[in-house]
Amino acid sequence: MKKALAIDVGGTKIYSAIIDETGKILSEIEKHATPKTLEEIRLTFKNIIKKYESEVDIVAFSTCGEVNNENTKIVGSTGNIAKEYPTLNFSSLSTKPVFVENDANCAAWAEYKIGASKGTSTSVMVTFGTGVGGGIIINNRLFKGKSGAAGAMHFKMYPDKRRKCTCGGWDCFEIYTSGLGLTKTAIEISKNPNITTYDIFDGVKKQDSQMLEIYNRWHRDIIAGFIGLANLFDPECIVLSGSLAQFVDTESVEQKVNEEIVTAPTKIYKATAGNYSGMIGAALLAFEKGELHG
Amino acid sequence: MKKALAIDVGGTKIYSAIIDETGKILSEIEKHATPKTLEEIRLTFKNIIKKYESEVDIVAFSTCGEVNNENTKIVGSTGNIAKEYPTLNFSSLSTKPVFVENDANCAAWAEYKIGASKGTSTSVMVTFGTGVGGGIIINNRLFKGKSGAAGAMHFKMYPDKRRKCTCGGWDCFEIYTSGLGLTKTAIEISKNPNITTYDIFDGVKKQDSQMLEIYNRWHRDIIAGFIGLANLFDPECIVLSGSLAQFVDTESVEQKVNEEIVTAPTKIYKATAGNYSGMIGAALLAFEKGELHG
Repeated sequence: MKKALAIDVGGTKIYSAIIDETGKILSEIEKHATPKTLEEIRLTFKNIIKKYESEVDIVAFSTCGEVNNENTKIVGSTGNIAKEYPTLNFSSLSTKPVFVENDANCAAWAEYKIGASKGTSTSVMVTFGTGVGGGIIINNRLFKGKSGAAGAMHFKMYPDKRRKCTCGGWDCFEIYTSGLGLTKTAIEISKNPNITTYDIFDGVKKQDSQMLEIYNRWHRDIIAGFIGLANLFDPECIVLSGSLAQFVDTESVEQKVNEEIVTAPTKIYKATAGNYSGMIGAALLAFEKGELHG
Repeated sequence: MKKALAIDVGGTKIYSAIIDETGKILSEIEKHATPKTLEEIRLTFKNIIKKYESEVDIVAFSTCGEVNNENTKIVGSTGNIAKEYPTLNFSSLSTKPVFVENDANCAAWAEYKIGASKGTSTSVMVTFGTGVGGGIIINNRLFKGKSGAAGAMHFKMYPDKRRKCTCGGWDCFEIYTSGLGLTKTAIEISKNPNITTYDIFDGVKKQDSQMLEIYNRWHRDIIAGFIGLANLFDPECIVLSGSLAQFVDTESVEQKVNEEIVTAPTKIYKATAGNYSGMIGAALLAFEKGELHG
């Protein structure tokens, strides 16, 4: 059975593991802090790859940032990682083939192959963490668009420039429903500039009325966005992943979304492929690479 | 060369023509008023088909309403046509094979095969008329979703229930940017309950400041929606069709959309496949039917 060395690259951590064609993790998970400079990041990759490449058939990156359709390089910016990171020449890192894909796309693929959207042919996955990521499967293929960036969860919640998004645009779904967006909403409602997402979810548990108001506003915004996604993509399901997914009341979201859409009812699921779905999806995509495009 | 009898079904008019595999219209365009009852609509179809079916290989309907993935029947509601229309058994109308597709999807396919998006593989078409329709091509296929309704332009412009949409939902792109939506905006701004889209476009020509305000608001809303579509679908182009497309300043829309998106720049084009793009697209889709799904 083929094996991949999977490497997950985020703004704060780099994980690696060896993964087989069934998505099974065969090794310990190795964990590194993401270094500040491109040169140190490259060195970290080189060290991991040197250690494991003889054991595997392919090196598969799940990375922050959108990735081109050839799965060789990052296109566009990547948020909180070294500014020069997108210039990295991934294929030069190993003597084995190197495959690169966006982390949300990898996670969506893992859910589709072994997780919550297994058995469907068209699904949307949304990750709620510090930011919001998206990965879309259409007719059993990862949907990449013309440049590889399809599925960016930057559609507007308002047309009239209220809240600047980290992407440089205005009022994106991300800047209302991500951890950062939720915190901004919480500060607006509570007038407490130091409020954290922990305060909110803890307050909800204690039935604090203001924290409930913030929590309900967050749900309203998630539902509003999901109605649009359901009408545009008519998916069999929408899968929620990321650190904040556990706090979403999926039952209520599914009911309210389905009450308002013009397409047939969709299911709303929480992700089930686990914390390392990015690495698993990267490995499984890398194995199928030849079938992906066109 | 194969020929199709194409029939375009709208709330007010039914058109028909014979169309060949290149999209060429071979006959006079026949035009009927859309009758009020299902029985009369069926009779109109029967008469058209009886007259021409011996000359063609297939009957291809371009119709209001979303159509299932088997291209045999309408799913969901259809607005301003007989309420029972979706129950029509299309295949019983002819001894020849009958193919049915949504009119916006047909028009999108015509643009893709012989019009503005020819040569691209991923594009979004938006029709601006009394309502707003959408048709999306992904990797050279019409994107239908799980039930056939994908591409419904019902994503929200606001999350907080301001304007009820004809679909039953709230604040959809359609209810701000369609002819009806534009009129609603115009009434809000002008306080004139009798204002028409003609007044607006005529006023813009005369540089009337209030009509310009309404026109600019319409553009702001179109741009806001297109930014979301460009980020979600990363299309090579967005094509504008429908009776209001001629009034859209596509150059300014393209510039403002590309200033704000996170994906690579997209092109904004006006449709070029002509007034009968629905019939042409229906015929061309019907000829390719076997290649469409899966």
